[in-house]
Amino acid sequence: MTSVLRRLRICVIGLGEMGIIHARNLVKFPGVELSLACNRKEILQNLGQELRAARTFQNYEEAITDKEIEAVVLATKPRDHAKQVALAAKHGKAIFCEKPLGYSTDAFADLEETVQSAGVKCMIGFQRRFDPCYRGAWEQTRRSAMGKSLVLKCTSGDPDFPDKYQRDLGFNSTLLDLAVHDIDLARWLLRSEVIRVFASCDALVYPHLKDMGESDTALCILEMESGARCFMHLSRSLRYGYNVTSELVSADGTIQIGEVKETPMVTLKAGRASTDICPSFSQRFRIAFRDEMQAFVDLLRGEQVGHFANIHDAIEATRVAETLVQSWRTGMPARVIRPSKKETQDVSKEAS
Amino acid sequence: MTSVLRRLRICVIGLGEMGIIHARNLVKFPGVELSLACNRKEILQNLGQELRAARTFQNYEEAITDKEIEAVVLATKPRDHAKQVALAAKHGKAIFCEKPLGYSTDAFADLEETVQSAGVKCMIGFQRRFDPCYRGAWEQTRRSAMGKSLVLKCTSGDPDFPDKYQRDLGFNSTLLDLAVHDIDLARWLLRSEVIRVFASCDALVYPHLKDMGESDTALCILEMESGARCFMHLSRSLRYGYNVTSELVSADGTIQIGEVKETPMVTLKAGRASTDICPSFSQRFRIAFRDEMQAFVDLLRGEQVGHFANIHDAIEATRVAETLVQSWRTGMPARVIRPSKKETQDVSKEAS
Amino acid sequence: MTSVLRRLRICVIGLGEMGIIHARNLVKFPGVELSLACNRKEILQNLGQELRAARTFQNYEEAITDKEIEAVVLATKPRDHAKQVALAAKHGKAIFCEKPLGYSTDAFADLEETVQSAGVKCMIGFQRRFDPCYRGAWEQTRRSAMGKSLVLKCTSGDPDFPDKYQRDLGFNSTLLDLAVHDIDLARWLLRSEVIRVFASCDALVYPHLKDMGESDTALCILEMESGARCFMHLSRSLRYGYNVTSELVSADGTIQIGEVKETPMVTLKAGRASTDICPSFSQRFRIAFRDEMQAFVDLLRGEQVGHFANIHDAIEATRVAETLVQSWRTGMPARVIRPSKKETQDVSKEAS
Amino acid sequence: MTSVLRRLRICVIGLGEMGIIHARNLVKFPGVELSLACNRKEILQNLGQELRAARTFQNYEEAITDKEIEAVVLATKPRDHAKQVALAAKHGKAIFCEKPLGYSTDAFADLEETVQSAGVKCMIGFQRRFDPCYRGAWEQTRRSAMGKSLVLKCTSGDPDFPDKYQRDLGFNSTLLDLAVHDIDLARWLLRSEVIRVFASCDALVYPHLKDMGESDTALCILEMESGARCFMHLSRSLRYGYNVTSELVSADGTIQIGEVKETPMVTLKAGRASTDICPSFSQRFRIAFRDEMQAFVDLLRGEQVGHFANIHDAIEATRVAETLVQSWRTGMPARVIRPSKKETQDVSKEAS
Repeated sequence: MTSVLRRLRICVIGLGEMGIIHARNLVKFPGVELSLACNRKEILQNLGQELRAARTFQNYEEAITDKEIEAVVLATKPRDHAKQVALAAKHGKAIFCEKPLGYSTDAFADLEETVQSAGVKCMIGFQRRFDPCYRGAWEQTRRSAMGKSLVLKCTSGDPDFPDKYQRDLGFNSTLLDLAVHDIDLARWLLRSEVIRVFASCDALVYPHLKDMGESDTALCILEMESGARCFMHLSRSLRYGYNVTSELVSADGTIQIGEVKETPMVTLKAGRASTDICPSFSQRFRIAFRDEMQAFVDLLRGEQVGHFANIHDAIEATRVAETLVQSWRTGMPARVIRPSKKETQDVSKEAS
Repeated sequence: MTSVLRRLRICVIGLGEMGIIHARNLVKFPGVELSLACNRKEILQNLGQELRAARTFQNYEEAITDKEIEAVVLATKPRDHAKQVALAAKHGKAIFCEKPLGYSTDAFADLEETVQSAGVKCMIGFQRRFDPCYRGAWEQTRRSAMGKSLVLKCTSGDPDFPDKYQRDLGFNSTLLDLAVHDIDLARWLLRSEVIRVFASCDALVYPHLKDMGESDTALCILEMESGARCFMHLSRSLRYGYNVTSELVSADGTIQIGEVKETPMVTLKAGRASTDICPSFSQRFRIAFRDEMQAFVDLLRGEQVGHFANIHDAIEATRVAETLVQSWRTGMPARVIRPSKKETQDVSKEAS
Repeated sequence: MTSVLRRLRICVIGLGEMGIIHARNLVKFPGVELSLACNRKEILQNLGQELRAARTFQNYEEAITDKEIEAVVLATKPRDHAKQVALAAKHGKAIFCEKPLGYSTDAFADLEETVQSAGVKCMIGFQRRFDPCYRGAWEQTRRSAMGKSLVLKCTSGDPDFPDKYQRDLGFNSTLLDLAVHDIDLARWLLRSEVIRVFASCDALVYPHLKDMGESDTALCILEMESGARCFMHLSRSLRYGYNVTSELVSADGTIQIGEVKETPMVTLKAGRASTDICPSFSQRFRIAFRDEMQAFVDLLRGEQVGHFANIHDAIEATRVAETLVQSWRTGMPARVIRPSKKETQDVSKEAS
Repeated sequence: MTSVLRRLRICVIGLGEMGIIHARNLVKFPGVELSLACNRKEILQNLGQELRAARTFQNYEEAITDKEIEAVVLATKPRDHAKQVALAAKHGKAIFCEKPLGYSTDAFADLEETVQSAGVKCMIGFQRRFDPCYRGAWEQTRRSAMGKSLVLKCTSGDPDFPDKYQRDLGFNSTLLDLAVHDIDLARWLLRSEVIRVFASCDALVYPHLKDMGESDTALCILEMESGARCFMHLSRSLRYGYNVTSELVSADGTIQIGEVKETPMVTLKAGRASTDICPSFSQRFRIAFRDEMQAFVDLLRGEQVGHFANIHDAIEATRVAETLVQSWRTGMPARVIRPSKKETQDVSKEAS
């Protein structure tokens, strides 16, 4: 407590919804000197002034390769993540990269090796690992408090198909962008790798999306090496609000994680008792997003940080999502194929 | 199991809402021969045919004193209960009497003695004692599972001021008719007698009732001999539905009893998660009403029946309610005064 | 109300857990003359005396073909259902048959035709259709209150693998005996037929059962003709209690049906707020079982009875379960194959 | 957003539990230059270094009167609040003062006038007004969304009698320190003044405290000028955890505010479904404490800040608590007596 905090020069790259959330969180940590990069000039100026950014960049490469910046928070388009991670690693920057790492593992060839050989710290934005509830569930599995894990059932639903995907279609974003969260949960909470998957998807609410290769509703089953299973219900059209809830069924008990309501206020009126429903991911995970940035800052300061997702976890999540897309396209279950040299890493050896 | 059930000749007297509930429950028990008495001819005929009543009476005295009837269920007007109980006792009938026993203890002089010296069985319709939840809470206090009982907090609310009280005003029915339930709970669950009370009442929703000596909202505090306290919130204008819930705070833990919702169905729509609310006492306590009649039948058959309210309990409930009315009229707390000869009976010795 | 009820002569055949539940419910309905059949003499005698059965039979065929019996409740072994239904139909008896109708559709050849050409009433024991919650959800789909149905998610879990299946293995009872409930729900609530299924099963808690062709854990996906999907999580090893809950996701809202707790009592102690959990199906569905028998009696009396499962529904449920077994054995999704002549009946035309 | 934030020099005085909470929150707001004052040297040094305090003071008067400090956060002993508020006001400092303002209104003579004539900003630490739930309820009363307010029922319970009161007894801290929160809620949510009170208190769990003039359990009723009532259950011995929950019953509906559980995680094990319980006020109100400091900073910057408690509110809360102590000592209800010159301020005119 008595040492003077070393100043950390961090640049948030990309100021979409997630970039702004990360920037606002980072500026509150003592010792962080925040810079910002955004190719939309007005946003950059406004947020720069509001947060009193040390420096601002309009060019992403410039920011990533700047000599004074020691860490980057990549909140750019998923299609650009892989090359930006590689660039940052080559320049020795510590990296926080938003999920998903990309939409195709083809883009990830050698990426894990690049990061590892550069020796840089690298954290991926699977923020549920920092949510107090999921963390509590993970802690229970670590202590085997509930016995062997059997089934993980996940619901991940947005109220609507996000506008950004209306602009950028042609792949199954419900699987490649949304399902990756639950895939990461399955690997992390069940402490095992996915070996086979089955996906049943459809565009039931927005039928016109079907021809574009999109779905708004997906039911998926993951079979894990341990024998455990994961079921995922993914929705881009829940309508009533945002719903991320999970249930971990174990041999000696079950944990239900999360709830739809946001505030503990019940209204009794006209024969109904009602509560609100959390409207968005940014509300549901606001503590997780803050703790995630805290963890990144701690990591930069050389402290021990447990159970964050690393580059390998990000690659595996996209690999499984890709296999789900394949299952959906063929209508058949599909085995997860991993490159022959890379052996499956034992996730159970992860830091606790 | 192998013995032939003795036929029980029971007459339900008075076919208002409660009389009909009791009659419909009784007719389902094997061995019960049901008769009915009602001074409204059409109701008597219709229900008599529907339930295939053995006999029907238009005159209450006739039914109560009939030689073949061995037990009466008095669901008549509270003002008539005391004299009907006395009449039934004198004719050796077993008695089930609806609550309240009356609106004034003046009518109860010698009633307890009359019933006791007649040696007849007598049960009072405080049906919450047969509700699985309240019964469970009582069981926990019996085993001292939660340590010393400290505070009982009760809510008893009707959606509206019942029509019948619009016809028959001039006393505080919220205290004398509704509060008696919670008073009985306090004596039964806290296993102690009430020594001092305070009532704060008002007619806030139906102001015109105020001049008639009625209230629609009452907050009351009961101080028990044991040191425990009871708080009661009584309402005749909850609007959203029927709500009878209680909370028993004990030295080592707390039990919350009951909930407002009726069915375990949650609707998620337009940003709200909602459930229904139980609309009426007859829905909330339908199992208790059935079990109460079962207990009465069991009692008639000579079986051991635990923790029902007896004539003494009914008199005490009205006595405390009367004292609440006095507190409300004077604006001061009031001590519960009991006739000098009768010593407080130890309710903790009750059958378990 | 004024007519005298015609006496109904009903015989409950088979006095296992379900037969006893049905007999105890039936004896309470006015006008029912109950007979019993059981090949275990002691049980037959004891229950016969307790319920004052009109007649008792030790031989099932004798009971089914007896001239005076007009309706049979078949609570015998599922393997015997099909031939007993056929026998009863040929003798003109009204039939209530417990679920499942059997373990193989091979046994059902011509059964639907036999029942229809005999012109007898036939109801199958899918009691969830009589549960107030599921009924409420069905009512909402009837009125399209929530818009198009998209996804039905079902959990059906027993605390333990029932003993009876330990004696009678060699098929997947989790699918053929347990899943049929959710399959019937899917057809009934989604108002569409199942066209393709996928099952992922394992014996994770009782591994020795695996070689016997049994599983204790199953995740299944059903694809419906309408485009809707159903997910089922089936468990024979929940441990914490009995859990049948479902969630119907529709275009404009979602309905969650059922809850794990049994009584509305919350205990606050030592830093935890806790409720009980319903221990068994007989507790969870006690009202449904009663209402189901009421519906059968009403049907016998010629009244209109809505939304019960008929012989066709029972055959379809087993057909889909068989297809799930096939999917599990091959590891591949499987299409539901129906005999060529029988066209899919339109379930949406069902009585409301 | 584009203007440079003026630097605010704020000193937190007193570094007990609340002072530390306020200091940690303040240091995160951009533009705040935090100083600290504490008469315990080690705490002052450690926190000073951790939060990189601009200046530190061991003497409270020195800090309050320092020329550069423009605002003080008084988290000192309640007995010292009144004189420190007066001193700060005389030196033109903006003031945030923790609740309660004191244990006796005798100490408040002229205090309201002193603050008003000094023209300084003054906010009192009734943080529930900044809790999202209570704020939501207040908002509904502002819009009359539920109709006329009838009854407010409050539970405020600590798991244990705080140690600090073991050192400093001789008054009813349950009323003067704990009940003031609910008194402030009643005035704020019911938008009316308290005219008469009744208190029933006892030391049921720690009987030795009784002779010292302390209680661990209190039931209180407040009667408001509007006719509405407030019931308060105050406990210093809940054992199971911390519980602040309230229920506002209005003519057209009811709002239940708060819940005992802290995290949305349900554990199903051994026949029980359970959740955690919030252990302490600092967890329950961590967002309110942060928003409260944000509001104070906003106030200092000249922004409009709604519905905080001012010096008048603090005086009224203590006046009502004193009257409750009087009721408890005499066993009688007591009228709230206000000094003749000061007329009751209309709380409904408060900023929104």
